[in-house]
Amino acid sequence: MSKPEPVVDDLYKLRHSMAHVLAQAVLKLWPDTQITIGPPIDYGCYYDFKFTTPISDENFKDIEKEMRKIINQGQTFEVDTLSIADAIAYWKEKNQKFKVELIEDLAKTGTTEVTHYRNVDAKGETTFTDLCRGGHVENLKDLPADGFKIMSLAGAYWRGDEKKDQLTRLYVAVFPSKEELKDYLTMLEEAKRRDHRKIGKEMDLFTFSDLVGPGLPLWTPRGTLLRNLLDGFVWELRSAKGYEKVSIPHITKKELYETSGHWAKFSDELFRITTREGHEFAMKPMNCPHHTQIFACQSRSYRSMPQRYAETTTCYRDEQTGELHGLSRVRAFAQDDAHVFCRQNQVKDEILKIWEIIDTFYATVGFKNLKVRLSLHDPDAFDKYLGTPEMWKQAEQNLRDLATDRKADFYEAPGEAAFYGPKVDFITRDSIGREWQVATVQLDINMPERFDLFCINEAGEKERIVMIHAAIMGSLERFLSIYIEHCAGLFPLWLAPTQVAVVPVAEPHEDYAKKIESELKEKGIRTLYLDPSDSLGKRVREGEKQKIPYILVIGDKEVTDSSLAVRNVHSKNQVTVSASEFMHAVETDVRNRALMESIG
Amino acid sequence: MSKPEPVVDDLYKLRHSMAHVLAQAVLKLWPDTQITIGPPIDYGCYYDFKFTTPISDENFKDIEKEMRKIINQGQTFEVDTLSIADAIAYWKEKNQKFKVELIEDLAKTGTTEVTHYRNVDAKGETTFTDLCRGGHVENLKDLPADGFKIMSLAGAYWRGDEKKDQLTRLYVAVFPSKEELKDYLTMLEEAKRRDHRKIGKEMDLFTFSDLVGPGLPLWTPRGTLLRNLLDGFVWELRSAKGYEKVSIPHITKKELYETSGHWAKFSDELFRITTREGHEFAMKPMNCPHHTQIFACQSRSYRSMPQRYAETTTCYRDEQTGELHGLSRVRAFAQDDAHVFCRQNQVKDEILKIWEIIDTFYATVGFKNLKVRLSLHDPDAFDKYLGTPEMWKQAEQNLRDLATDRKADFYEAPGEAAFYGPKVDFITRDSIGREWQVATVQLDINMPERFDLFCINEAGEKERIVMIHAAIMGSLERFLSIYIEHCAGLFPLWLAPTQVAVVPVAEPHEDYAKKIESELKEKGIRTLYLDPSDSLGKRVREGEKQKIPYILVIGDKEVTDSSLAVRNVHSKNQVTVSASEFMHAVETDVRNRALMESIG
Repeated sequence: MSKPEPVVDDLYKLRHSMAHVLAQAVLKLWPDTQITIGPPIDYGCYYDFKFTTPISDENFKDIEKEMRKIINQGQTFEVDTLSIADAIAYWKEKNQKFKVELIEDLAKTGTTEVTHYRNVDAKGETTFTDLCRGGHVENLKDLPADGFKIMSLAGAYWRGDEKKDQLTRLYVAVFPSKEELKDYLTMLEEAKRRDHRKIGKEMDLFTFSDLVGPGLPLWTPRGTLLRNLLDGFVWELRSAKGYEKVSIPHITKKELYETSGHWAKFSDELFRITTREGHEFAMKPMNCPHHTQIFACQSRSYRSMPQRYAETTTCYRDEQTGELHGLSRVRAFAQDDAHVFCRQNQVKDEILKIWEIIDTFYATVGFKNLKVRLSLHDPDAFDKYLGTPEMWKQAEQNLRDLATDRKADFYEAPGEAAFYGPKVDFITRDSIGREWQVATVQLDINMPERFDLFCINEAGEKERIVMIHAAIMGSLERFLSIYIEHCAGLFPLWLAPTQVAVVPVAEPHEDYAKKIESELKEKGIRTLYLDPSDSLGKRVREGEKQKIPYILVIGDKEVTDSSLAVRNVHSKNQVTVSASEFMHAVETDVRNRALMESIG
Repeated sequence: MSKPEPVVDDLYKLRHSMAHVLAQAVLKLWPDTQITIGPPIDYGCYYDFKFTTPISDENFKDIEKEMRKIINQGQTFEVDTLSIADAIAYWKEKNQKFKVELIEDLAKTGTTEVTHYRNVDAKGETTFTDLCRGGHVENLKDLPADGFKIMSLAGAYWRGDEKKDQLTRLYVAVFPSKEELKDYLTMLEEAKRRDHRKIGKEMDLFTFSDLVGPGLPLWTPRGTLLRNLLDGFVWELRSAKGYEKVSIPHITKKELYETSGHWAKFSDELFRITTREGHEFAMKPMNCPHHTQIFACQSRSYRSMPQRYAETTTCYRDEQTGELHGLSRVRAFAQDDAHVFCRQNQVKDEILKIWEIIDTFYATVGFKNLKVRLSLHDPDAFDKYLGTPEMWKQAEQNLRDLATDRKADFYEAPGEAAFYGPKVDFITRDSIGREWQVATVQLDINMPERFDLFCINEAGEKERIVMIHAAIMGSLERFLSIYIEHCAGLFPLWLAPTQVAVVPVAEPHEDYAKKIESELKEKGIRTLYLDPSDSLGKRVREGEKQKIPYILVIGDKEVTDSSLAVRNVHSKNQVTVSASEFMHAVETDVRNRALMESIG
């Protein structure tokens, strides 16, 4: 799959140049190392090496020292253009077989010349040469000697192929300044503290079982509650826009995906089943083909259009074990999926309705100012897509017009479309600055063709319809991995699995505390009563560990005044309010899905 | 699996004798027919034949005539005991190879003698002989000449093996009297009229797709609503008893089922998956092993017991295509499943809670007076079960005590237990007299052993716990197949996918009709507006076809009086009431989940 060219901006040049510095330093320290490739990445760069003796993170300091030395020497970049034969000869002489292989492969695609970038020191001597297409700083002095850090070391295969040479990848964080590097490292520390796998365990939200297998989360009562509250909110928003729930099985005969095109486009990640009668089945990796069959089960008059089907249902993908990560990358994930089957002239209204749902949902849970990306087809690789260029042009223009009409702040991303149509993707930034793609709306002109979906129009004729795919949270697992880390587990009151902890200081306070507990429970507030069999400090810490938004400590004063000492775990404030004021505030905040608690 | 012996009562004798009459008649009409076996069944009997020329249902009349002739001749039954050799010689001489094979097989199991039952006519002549263990009427005159009817003809394989001879099976309904036969035939007609596959299509509740495959229902918006209303009611009842929802994936590694014992006990019906990395996975045919993994994810104090997990989730079984039938037998079915993990001394309370839920649920949906069956192990085939005889004895006694304490009208059924424990099964009778097993509560002493499930008791020691499996509807698909036929699609108001149809007679009545429509919708009543573009008759018929409980016809009189002409589709009555009276009645009935509508 060809990817669009990267944008060669200043940061790209910085990071790309740093990869050359890294390779130069490694060769200086271990001259018989084989070098391969070293691209920039979103926080710096990496380089893959084949060392003759293994290195470890204990070598990082030495490599960094060497890199700093190189930067301070003020080397420049010089470019040479070589014929394929000359370039191969050069690398053969240097005994660098990976470079030779790269050039031979370039030759096979018709390339006749390649470029080498040489670093040259003040004396005019070449210190390092790499096969490279360019995009560097002028002088290595332009690199920040205190703005980089070797982050980690990992195993990698040459060309990602486990049958080929095993390499060592060095990751380097590269930022324009010391301060920016520091911010990045702080963010990483914070991300570690917020790791959803750690918080998920502490808060008892989900678990994995060795017997069930990796990538297959099991949701505990508390986690299921959280999922259902979020999903219920999405449904409330959809229901108001005329959506209806449907329900499909998680498997299908092969024929459904042959018709949809997924069998060919998706085949590696499909969990396949051969039935005892020898039929080929698959577990669904998405829901659209099944939903078409509900639409197609009867003739649809234009008067019954649009049909809007919503369903939160689990999809399955055969991900490789090494790729799995917490809830972010799993084999089983529930999508809050919806498909609108509508006429061409209803597309705009329907997408705007979805856009409103997305805006409301994300603002409510605390992600404001979503970025909007129009994900378009890659014009250089049209064979990846279904349909004709004309269909795509029209559909993409529709989305562009719509985003413009809505005065959205959007950008276009060729190559990011689904294989059946262009998308509007929504991107959020979490509380520690990381960007995540969340909701998506996809305009599909292909499935309706392939499944021959139509309605009977005013003239009594068959009219081809259009499908819109729309997930709000997308995968609930992935959304929750982001959201747990965004909140660091401190969910808004309406989402907290336990909303209030009642903590009587000692036995004499239990009567009043139990009265408060039952009053809260009657109002449907999820309340945990922590009796005085443990110390006060231990119980308060337990409430904090569970990230219960309100901890009510009840002692003599509270009993006498019919008041409550309220610890707000979010703000860390403690205030004393009357019991009735507290009850009222809690009920109001939950009803309004307030982002912040009113008390404290 | 060995089955308990049938009860040889009068009806058994009638039906068994009739099978001899059928075979005698067939041999009279087609003397070169090969006969095989002919057992009684729950409405009569069948007999499998190998005809030399095919017969069809056009021959039924002639066969029945011949049977009647035989009955009226007053033949008796005589029994002969033969050695194996003599019996084989007898049937070889008659050229009846299937009987020869049957006797040879009996000989292999150590049998040395067999019995032949001969029919003998008034002249003392033998008219028909069959290999048989007995259980007949004295004289064929005791058979009801007008109480039987040949129902159908079907293909069958000798010994159910598709590699063996193809046979023709004739089914005969046999009842003690003409009236009872008539009642049975009327019930069948009624069952046909109520066929859930037909009503499901007419009411647009579910569909099947050739591309998705047989046995995999897709639920439309209306069907999904019905499912969710029923499931929501079960959840409401469970929630009040302290249950919590959990959520599990639909697949697992093989290891989970090896530990639970399902891999060995269930293997034929498992949908198996081999992942791209070569691991063996299976789709879950039930939920208990997964739920154990949620219980086991942390240490449980006795103070947190019982843990009650509920989940409505789809299970998968690789049923053979020929066995599939509408929603009654499917490959994908949602279970409203729950598992209680509790201490031995909590079992009684927990089962009583479930029993209450079952009673409330079934009474509310209109199935009163459930029969209770204690399903126990088969003492002659203990190898089918997990655990020790002592464990079983104790668990079965627990259930027996509990049913006795509850003063339930129960009976015991050895051989009907699950392989991991005894059950309390609930059996209902539908509106046309058919019995169905519905809810089930299972006491499981084996899974906790196999998964090493325990809690920490008051003494700080590990204490083995017990599991209770409890489904209320069981499979939603199967429950709905029964319930749709029980109601003939005329669901109680709270469950009707569309509750009210608003039908203005003509254009001048539309304003008022629309006002009524929006008032109903505001109250959350599912309302269908049928505008006057079609004739009044057609619209009313449409409402009736969709089985909408109330059809409101709005004409001059209604507009003038602010009243409504209400057709109750259930009672077929039409009454006129004030709009406000109607609104109030509808709201109240829905809130109370009333079985019958209050108006009309």
